[in-house]
Amino acid sequence: MDRILLAHGSGGRLSHDLIEDIFLPYFTASALAKLDDAAVVEPIGAPLQKGQLELSHSGRVAFTTDSYVVKPLFFNGGDIGRLAVCGTVNDLAMVGAMPLYLSAGFIIEEGLELHVLREVVASMRASAQEAGVEIVAGDTKVVEKGGADQLFINTAGLGLVPQGVDISASNARPGDVVIVSGATGDHGIAVLSEREGLAFKTELESDVAPLNHLVAAMMHTSSHIHVLRDPTRGGLGTSLNEIAQQSQVGIAIEEHRIPVHDGVRAACEMLGYDPLYVANEGKLVAVIGREDVDQILEAMRAHPYAEEAAIIGEVTAEPRGKVLLRTGIGGTRVVDMLAGEMLPRIC
Amino acid sequence: MDRILLAHGSGGRLSHDLIEDIFLPYFTASALAKLDDAAVVEPIGAPLQKGQLELSHSGRVAFTTDSYVVKPLFFNGGDIGRLAVCGTVNDLAMVGAMPLYLSAGFIIEEGLELHVLREVVASMRASAQEAGVEIVAGDTKVVEKGGADQLFINTAGLGLVPQGVDISASNARPGDVVIVSGATGDHGIAVLSEREGLAFKTELESDVAPLNHLVAAMMHTSSHIHVLRDPTRGGLGTSLNEIAQQSQVGIAIEEHRIPVHDGVRAACEMLGYDPLYVANEGKLVAVIGREDVDQILEAMRAHPYAEEAAIIGEVTAEPRGKVLLRTGIGGTRVVDMLAGEMLPRIC
Repeated sequence: MDRILLAHGSGGRLSHDLIEDIFLPYFTASALAKLDDAAVVEPIGAPLQKGQLELSHSGRVAFTTDSYVVKPLFFNGGDIGRLAVCGTVNDLAMVGAMPLYLSAGFIIEEGLELHVLREVVASMRASAQEAGVEIVAGDTKVVEKGGADQLFINTAGLGLVPQGVDISASNARPGDVVIVSGATGDHGIAVLSEREGLAFKTELESDVAPLNHLVAAMMHTSSHIHVLRDPTRGGLGTSLNEIAQQSQVGIAIEEHRIPVHDGVRAACEMLGYDPLYVANEGKLVAVIGREDVDQILEAMRAHPYAEEAAIIGEVTAEPRGKVLLRTGIGGTRVVDMLAGEMLPRIC
Repeated sequence: MDRILLAHGSGGRLSHDLIEDIFLPYFTASALAKLDDAAVVEPIGAPLQKGQLELSHSGRVAFTTDSYVVKPLFFNGGDIGRLAVCGTVNDLAMVGAMPLYLSAGFIIEEGLELHVLREVVASMRASAQEAGVEIVAGDTKVVEKGGADQLFINTAGLGLVPQGVDISASNARPGDVVIVSGATGDHGIAVLSEREGLAFKTELESDVAPLNHLVAAMMHTSSHIHVLRDPTRGGLGTSLNEIAQQSQVGIAIEEHRIPVHDGVRAACEMLGYDPLYVANEGKLVAVIGREDVDQILEAMRAHPYAEEAAIIGEVTAEPRGKVLLRTGIGGTRVVDMLAGEMLPRIC
């Protein structure tokens, strides 16, 4: 048997075989291995062994979900499995939570080759280990050929929010500084070039990565992190708009300060895209109290996933809910949210 | 705009419109309305206001996930939205947890009519209210026409496990009694008849329902509930096998004691199915210490979702890992797990 059959989703014998052959060898959490209807975990004792932070914990839990439908399943720098772990870990980190546990739900098209599934699951395990999270609950559904496109993965994530931490897109204040952790658009262009077989393919790698350790280092350095956001679908431009609107502030950024790799810039020029709207999967934008900017930048640049961290602008009182870009030639334009769809199935 | 466009999954303007127009009117939890990357919730204070039980809480969290790919989306007695809420609520209840929070991830095929999505979301809200849970995190992805079949939903669930509660499929002990909460196979046959346009269609309704209040009433009555399981995909036969294997015990059941509605029996005879393998979405099987059976049965039958609760058998020391069925004509046969796939996309 080297392909997924409908019967792998029956809940019966073949479902059990699939769980034992493919999932349990990689997802080894004891709560999962019990194969009960839900995993029972004890987050309360966990963080002191896990984090770089000394936490006293607040009893607040962070909870998030994302589905992943990226096409193709494998691309330069990553795959749907690494994406599914990192994307959800990052969503937890963006509210200042320490990610602890993930669930994984697979929707598989009949006929998918088992070695593909195994490779994805192995990648999930490696990414979970890097992030320091456990996959403790799972589900598999199989739909008939043509009912889905190869493989979709949903992950939900659970994390603990340390005492006193309040990081939210609604917390930006005039005078705050806006930082990005690195160059924008790598993931979107890497996936697109894989899909379309573009010439610059080999140069570009997706940035997909778990950012929780970076965030922990930032939180260790400063208690003035007001907003964190990972600019995935919709890109940096959309994330900044979300922050401006939820905080009811203006955001002014400078084009020449936004890091963009040459390959992304070239691809965007060729294809008529704006790097501000191209997806990232291993970058964050942070809005920080001005007093701690130097220490935070230093801490970020010491981390492998944020060596190119840069200040790109600041928070202003007006115009509320708007993002203004000062361009290289000295003009100013409003950056809106992404309108329409540029790159479907990018994550 | 009356249909889903690819741009509704872009993460940009139309994604935000979709969230505001379709999701937020029905999913009203404040943690969700903040629109941060993860919901921050405070489970620690919650249970005393929520439950029928006086809990002291153990710090243990139950976490589960399921994806729903049922076809068609609407069927007699329910729809994919009610299924997605109840299925995950029930998985939490099956480990004795009090369900508190759900996430919801939607994978939508381009072209889906918005009124369909709205109806599903309204049904999720109603079911969540019935169960007493909040939907606090969500995600929407859109794939191109033909990339998925209409709508798939993943829900993950979070619940709290009360102090001292240890309910697991590995806890069945010889001498325990096996109870089902009602007739088996209603959901599977209801969906199948909707799909195939079978003649007995109008008589049969899916049993899809949240069982957490029933479980709370049972736990209030007895502290000798050893195992709970909801026999969904794979049916009662597969669930009993899972219990027998995980607990390393035998299970002996009597065919004439297993409640089966006439419509299900007739459909199974016509189609060559065994009701033991047909899916339920609002039933549970319980393995109970013998001393409390009368009180538990009484408590169950007082509940609208378990009026037909019945003892169907007992747990034996041997043969380990096997389920034996005494048939109506006096024979005994081994009931195995479901082999192959009988009814794809039943949940």
